[in-house]
Amino acid sequence: MLKNLADALAIKAYITTERCRKALIVGAGFIAMEMAEALRNIGLDTKIVHRGSLPASRWDPEFSKLIAEELERNQAPFLKNVKALAVENGRESRLRLITDQGEMEADLILLALGVRPNVKCASDMGIVIGDTGAIKVDAAQATSMEGVYAVGDCCEAFHRVSRRWVNMPLGDVANKQGRVAGRNIGGAPSAFRGIVGSQSFKVFGLEVAATGLDEKAAAESGYRPATALVWGNAVAASMPAAKKLGIKLVADRATGKLLGAQAVGEAGAVSRINTLAAVLWSEMGLDDVAFLDLAYSPPFGGSWDLIHIAAQVLTKQL
Amino acid sequence: MLKNLADALAIKAYITTERCRKALIVGAGFIAMEMAEALRNIGLDTKIVHRGSLPASRWDPEFSKLIAEELERNQAPFLKNVKALAVENGRESRLRLITDQGEMEADLILLALGVRPNVKCASDMGIVIGDTGAIKVDAAQATSMEGVYAVGDCCEAFHRVSRRWVNMPLGDVANKQGRVAGRNIGGAPSAFRGIVGSQSFKVFGLEVAATGLDEKAAAESGYRPATALVWGNAVAASMPAAKKLGIKLVADRATGKLLGAQAVGEAGAVSRINTLAAVLWSEMGLDDVAFLDLAYSPPFGGSWDLIHIAAQVLTKQL
Repeated sequence: MLKNLADALAIKAYITTERCRKALIVGAGFIAMEMAEALRNIGLDTKIVHRGSLPASRWDPEFSKLIAEELERNQAPFLKNVKALAVENGRESRLRLITDQGEMEADLILLALGVRPNVKCASDMGIVIGDTGAIKVDAAQATSMEGVYAVGDCCEAFHRVSRRWVNMPLGDVANKQGRVAGRNIGGAPSAFRGIVGSQSFKVFGLEVAATGLDEKAAAESGYRPATALVWGNAVAASMPAAKKLGIKLVADRATGKLLGAQAVGEAGAVSRINTLAAVLWSEMGLDDVAFLDLAYSPPFGGSWDLIHIAAQVLTKQL
Repeated sequence: MLKNLADALAIKAYITTERCRKALIVGAGFIAMEMAEALRNIGLDTKIVHRGSLPASRWDPEFSKLIAEELERNQAPFLKNVKALAVENGRESRLRLITDQGEMEADLILLALGVRPNVKCASDMGIVIGDTGAIKVDAAQATSMEGVYAVGDCCEAFHRVSRRWVNMPLGDVANKQGRVAGRNIGGAPSAFRGIVGSQSFKVFGLEVAATGLDEKAAAESGYRPATALVWGNAVAASMPAAKKLGIKLVADRATGKLLGAQAVGEAGAVSRINTLAAVLWSEMGLDDVAFLDLAYSPPFGGSWDLIHIAAQVLTKQL
């Protein structure tokens, strides 16, 4: 179980004391990716086993393919379409993973299969649980029971783009909600202004980031999404160290507003997504994004940044 | 004269053919900084001579001091409070710079003293020139004379924060205005949505960026500015390669809106300023900035990014 610092230290200690040499990671979300890098960095033979065909399903297949290639390049093979069935004692290694594609042995098997909010305590108390399975809260982070507040992975958050209450368990959101709840408990009124679904991770030499909705989530929220995916450079193309960067934008045909963005590259992906997170927060239209006044300098981007180019390409499709 | 690529190539050729070994740069704006790095990188003994006490006057003295230190660290000494008076033929080197603090010899002397818009052609034609000395244009980039458009360093641009027409000669703004003028000339209506004054440069190992107004410009535009300057890390403090980063925010006491931002650091400065440029563009309040949903991951920032911390510190001063 890897939920907190103590779990991480226990895994690390186990690897050392048991002299682990081979690891298997089941799942291919961002925790699986981060663990793959961490285990490779301390020299473990590491493989990723996933029932799907690509890692990081939030991202466009074109980007996920790049992530799979990055795993391969760093000797952390991505084994697709493999369904894990059971874990048994191994023969050559300590453990054996039984899958629908055969068996694999390893000294360490990590299950990174996502999380579900732990709401037992709240539901036992009779506190209302939302449709997402997480605790229902209001803008003050108050639950349905007077004097009881909830923050973090166990509760819902208002998604400003989908206009729905969602459960998106991320550390920075938990921190913000904690601050809001703390202020309200302490008598200083405060409201949590919601999220736009921003997220990032690093896997070896790749930055991976996203914000807002993908086209599927956008359609489910009642928008009429159009998308564009463009490739370019994180810095001006004339610079010696030009790094490949891809950006995908999703916008609404009805309003022309940006609904979401994804970026993957050796550099500059998180930076673009943070800028676009501010764009989503303020419900900016694509016309504005295409002419946004960014801090241009060749070492940091082109005079037309990839953000501008992607917005211009997408504008033509609306 | 260094105005375009041909000038740059001419200077480069001159350095080679004349076997230049010593350079002096007069002025300390971003062009002076970029040239200092370029000349040091090809091995020239380079000094910067400035009539003021700190370089990069747009930035807070605390940041400008860091820039001066970065110049010193890279053997490009910053000579403050030196007024250049004349350039004469040298004895040991080709040229001699006469200053109020004595004489200095060099093979190459660059005057990087800022630019003024060249509007002679336009004013000869009777086209209206604005109070800034640059050509007056409207949202379509049209001048006062029918059928004549102006874009780039020679014309004004609407500053969305100061709500004034300004002349801020930067390459990316010129590109955007060119696109707008081109569309209008070609019969596809287009309006330039203005600037928020974003700008960045690299000097050796430092990223330097700013957007919006500093407190002086804010006060001159009728705002009642409050400021906060905070130091932190470009990535989570727990990361091995934590890089020092400073952010300064300016906000309006009357409306609580962000008016400007500056950032300087080994990494992450431009990224923050671009996010804050989107904030300025959409006239976001500081309360929102303090809880903006950024794409958190330890390699790219803290769970509270320095943007959040700076906004929270400044909120207390409003």
